[in-house]
Amino acid sequence: MSTADQSPAARRRGRRPAGQDTRAALLTAARDVFTESGYEGATVRAIAARAGVDAAMVNHWFGGKEGLFAQAVLKLPFDPQIMVTTLLEGGLDGLGARVVRQFVTTWDATSGGTFPALVRSLASHDQAAAGLRDFLVKHILGHIVDRIQADEPHLRTNLCASQLIGIGMARYVAKFDPFASADVETLVAAIGPTLQRYLTGDLGLTDQP
Amino acid sequence: MSTADQSPAARRRGRRPAGQDTRAALLTAARDVFTESGYEGATVRAIAARAGVDAAMVNHWFGGKEGLFAQAVLKLPFDPQIMVTTLLEGGLDGLGARVVRQFVTTWDATSGGTFPALVRSLASHDQAAAGLRDFLVKHILGHIVDRIQADEPHLRTNLCASQLIGIGMARYVAKFDPFASADVETLVAAIGPTLQRYLTGDLGLTDQP
Repeated sequence: MSTADQSPAARRRGRRPAGQDTRAALLTAARDVFTESGYEGATVRAIAARAGVDAAMVNHWFGGKEGLFAQAVLKLPFDPQIMVTTLLEGGLDGLGARVVRQFVTTWDATSGGTFPALVRSLASHDQAAAGLRDFLVKHILGHIVDRIQADEPHLRTNLCASQLIGIGMARYVAKFDPFASADVETLVAAIGPTLQRYLTGDLGLTDQP
Repeated sequence: MSTADQSPAARRRGRRPAGQDTRAALLTAARDVFTESGYEGATVRAIAARAGVDAAMVNHWFGGKEGLFAQAVLKLPFDPQIMVTTLLEGGLDGLGARVVRQFVTTWDATSGGTFPALVRSLASHDQAAAGLRDFLVKHILGHIVDRIQADEPHLRTNLCASQLIGIGMARYVAKFDPFASADVETLVAAIGPTLQRYLTGDLGLTDQP
């Protein structure tokens, strides 16, 4: 991991006010810049400049642009880079089940957290929605599919996103019964094979180029 | 089909103003009563009374409460009863592919139509959302699963709903690329097996009672 004197925790102990101010300023600046420019258009440099801090602080506090977006805009209850790394460590066997288990346990931990707000954002037509779309597909699922090196990688990320968003809709937004109250392993057993096929299986596209 | 002198078309030819007034009054009354009482709580009798017409007019113009809800509140581009009947006529083989094809072609025909509005409604916490939830799960997918007589019918309807809503989110709301522009048969090939498994397959629930 990081050395002790460079960690956010160490900084927090040593000079909490300045550090927390930097972090808060970056979050505020990030929300503005991502909203104005979308995920792709926003640069770490522009966000840091808006916050009046050095661009290195983005890596220091958030691990980079993805982590900053995840915390500032999506308010995700997890670090996407760590999540992807952990999922891939187990290899391809059972990856679909692990993705479903990770998705459900993470969101369950905050009772759905910001998921309904994310959905409302996706259903609107603002820049944040475009940023969210790029982020989910390219920067979370894209990382996973890149490692698998299957055919049709973009369609595979999209298919996974469609089922994962559907899980969130059914469990946290529409709250279908029994889906909303089902234990995690029931959903993993039922939906894991779907994600596994979307990630590594035959998509049946025999007529495709 | 219906006899000529009882069809809406015949009525429209014969006495269009009164008929159209009845239909419009029912739509307005239905929106109010469904919003106040939810799908389950609303009765055909209450809606007809609010509209000042005979309850038989609901069956005449909308085929019943489901059809009225579909048109008045959901503004669906199809008649749910006809859709379910048609899907089931083909038997269980390939049912998953037919459900996906029906869902995508129907919504494609109106470029997503009211789907984003439905999602915003689901993400809100109003009575309409509860009505929508009951309607989708119990009265569309429920009809299909009832005929299949598999184990865990409620979980199966929920699983189907999660993937179908995910399709709508990916294609019409978030507009993922290439999902939003993929031809229908690509999605049928990729997602049909998912729906087939959710409807008729082994859900892997070996530890369940």
